[in-house]
Amino acid sequence: MRYELFYWSGIQGRGEFVRLALEEAGADYVDAARRAGGEQRMMAMMNSRRCDPPPFAPPFLKANKLVIAQVANILLYLGGRHGLAPKSEAGRLRLHQLQLTLTDFVVEIHDTHHPLGPTLYYEDQRREAAKRTDEFWKSRAPKFLGYFEDIAAHGGGPYLDGRRVSYVDLSLFQIVDGLRYAFPKRMKRFERRIPRLAALHDRVGARPNIAAYLKSNRRIPFNTDGIFRHYPALDR
Amino acid sequence: MRYELFYWSGIQGRGEFVRLALEEAGADYVDAARRAGGEQRMMAMMNSRRCDPPPFAPPFLKANKLVIAQVANILLYLGGRHGLAPKSEAGRLRLHQLQLTLTDFVVEIHDTHHPLGPTLYYEDQRREAAKRTDEFWKSRAPKFLGYFEDIAAHGGGPYLDGRRVSYVDLSLFQIVDGLRYAFPKRMKRFERRIPRLAALHDRVGARPNIAAYLKSNRRIPFNTDGIFRHYPALDR
Repeated sequence: MRYELFYWSGIQGRGEFVRLALEEAGADYVDAARRAGGEQRMMAMMNSRRCDPPPFAPPFLKANKLVIAQVANILLYLGGRHGLAPKSEAGRLRLHQLQLTLTDFVVEIHDTHHPLGPTLYYEDQRREAAKRTDEFWKSRAPKFLGYFEDIAAHGGGPYLDGRRVSYVDLSLFQIVDGLRYAFPKRMKRFERRIPRLAALHDRVGARPNIAAYLKSNRRIPFNTDGIFRHYPALDR
Repeated sequence: MRYELFYWSGIQGRGEFVRLALEEAGADYVDAARRAGGEQRMMAMMNSRRCDPPPFAPPFLKANKLVIAQVANILLYLGGRHGLAPKSEAGRLRLHQLQLTLTDFVVEIHDTHHPLGPTLYYEDQRREAAKRTDEFWKSRAPKFLGYFEDIAAHGGGPYLDGRRVSYVDLSLFQIVDGLRYAFPKRMKRFERRIPRLAALHDRVGARPNIAAYLKSNRRIPFNTDGIFRHYPALDR
């Protein structure tokens, strides 16, 4: 079976958490919306009653007849099939819980540049974005990243959940990578407080499948349309 | 086995989605943090390494040795055990996907009064909250609630996923109930556009276990500390 991933063709965005899992797993997949006519097909699927229910938003994954939306849900599905999650129910719930906590964090990262909501442009909310970003770096990033640093400190390593890499490690890689792109100055100062997550980032990035992916043109470069956006005014 | 639910004792908040599932199921549970010393015990569990990983935030559910955090994750666990979710993998993923979409919506509802982040008081962000609330009612509430109304319109009913009530129906009940409390004027105008969700709300509220719960003192009244807050300035 060949998976089809549907996500906006011009950004890493939320689709990237799924792309990283598919790449690490060496899964047979196509990034369907990046093909000719792909985004139209994606939109048609979202408006069709043939998916029941249709996805509320990309990304979604087509696996034969199954159409699965919501990043954490897709990873829950893929994790069990590709060795990126523990086999026991307790282990799967534990990992999913961590992924849902990262999902919450991703919303807060996005809201640094969109505090007044996703319907307005950044340019219409610069002042509010500056305030929210200050709060984010004062309180929220330390709380979320500190939580994961603490888990890494108490685990047996080298990965967050032990000896085997999981989809949560891949997502943490993406978050560290994205924060470095969006906030290079702030992140440089902050990273001293999360040495284990920085090391985990490098460890994931050096895995053969991930390293090959990052060098390929399948990896879309960061830009100011995704979740992680570099606006110099926000990176003081 | 008696479940222990841990959540802030003074608010419905995110814990309410779990309370409704436990009540509908007639499950044996205690709302542990509402007992004497309960919140201290909750905080101790969050700071303890005996939960691995400790929950990032309440609510969390203790089921024997298992400690499960994140609302959607708890409902995924409970749904399978108490007949509040389909048995097939495809059915469970479909329902979980809908719950995760509601999770996203709940963040946006919360952000109407906290656009600059959860670390500042509402009083420090009144102007921004007014802007975000306008955007919410102009674009986001129609998009999210319209999506669920559409699913209800195409399903066989009487519940969202068919003949049997699921945890997603309970969460939709809570969202309609909460929006009515927080935005009575706006919701009165808006509800004409979501007649099926309004009917679903009433159908869920009339179920014997839910009706008994709503009349009991186990149901904490809405107030301005939870997700749904009534601020007259935001309800025009």
